[in-house]
Amino acid sequence: MTDTAATGRDLPHPEREEIRLETVLHALSDPMRLRIVRELALAEEELSCSRFDLPVTKSTTTHHFRVLRESGVVRQVYRGTAKMNALRREDLDALFPGLLDSLLSAAGRQFARLGDDI
Amino acid sequence: MTDTAATGRDLPHPEREEIRLETVLHALSDPMRLRIVRELALAEEELSCSRFDLPVTKSTTTHHFRVLRESGVVRQVYRGTAKMNALRREDLDALFPGLLDSLLSAAGRQFARLGDDI
Repeated sequence: MTDTAATGRDLPHPEREEIRLETVLHALSDPMRLRIVRELALAEEELSCSRFDLPVTKSTTTHHFRVLRESGVVRQVYRGTAKMNALRREDLDALFPGLLDSLLSAAGRQFARLGDDI
Repeated sequence: MTDTAATGRDLPHPEREEIRLETVLHALSDPMRLRIVRELALAEEELSCSRFDLPVTKSTTTHHFRVLRESGVVRQVYRGTAKMNALRREDLDALFPGLLDSLLSAAGRQFARLGDDI
C-alpha cells in the first residue's frame, strides 16, 4: 500500500498491481457506492466527500469511500481540510480494459430504468 | 420469483426485470463464484454442479451456486438427479449490454496474470 503526493496525512491505497477484480466488484456491489462512482465518472474531476448528498449518515458515507479507496476504485487525497476523491480510471482501464465503462453504462441503464432508489 | 420448465423440484429464480446490478456484482465478488462463471462461459453449455472441482466443501459449493442463482447470474434446473447450471447470458446481455463479456474478460486477464489462486 502506497499513496500519492498529498498534503501531510496520506491515506493508504493499493498499488495498481495489487488491485483485485473480486474486490473491485465487492466495492461496487452496494447502491450507494455505485452512485458515488457514477457521480465521480460524470464529474470527470476530483470531488470532495462533502459534495455527495447521500441518504445515509456521515459515518456510513465515510465507510463507503474507504471501501472504494481500499479496493482501488478511487484515489482519496487531502487537499487542505477537504478529502478529495477521483476515480482511478487509468489503473482500472490498464488492468481491466473496458470494464469500468461497462459497469458505468450498466449502472446508468439501471438508474434510467429504476430511478434513484437502486 | 419464477422458474423454468424442469423436472419436479423447481428452484426459485429472479425474473429478468428483477435482476439488480449490485446483486450481480456481489455474486461475482467472490473468487470461487468468478471461477464458476468463467467455467460456465467457457463450456457454453449446461454443467452439473459435480463437474466443478472447487477447493471448498460441497456445502460451500452449493452455497456459491445458490448465490449465483438468486442474483440472476445462473439458471439452475434439475434434470433427473443432476442439478444443471447455465449462465443467464441472454438476460444479462439484455439488461446490461457488454457487461458480462467485460467481466469475463477481466477475470480472464486476472487469471492469466495471477494464476488459479485468484
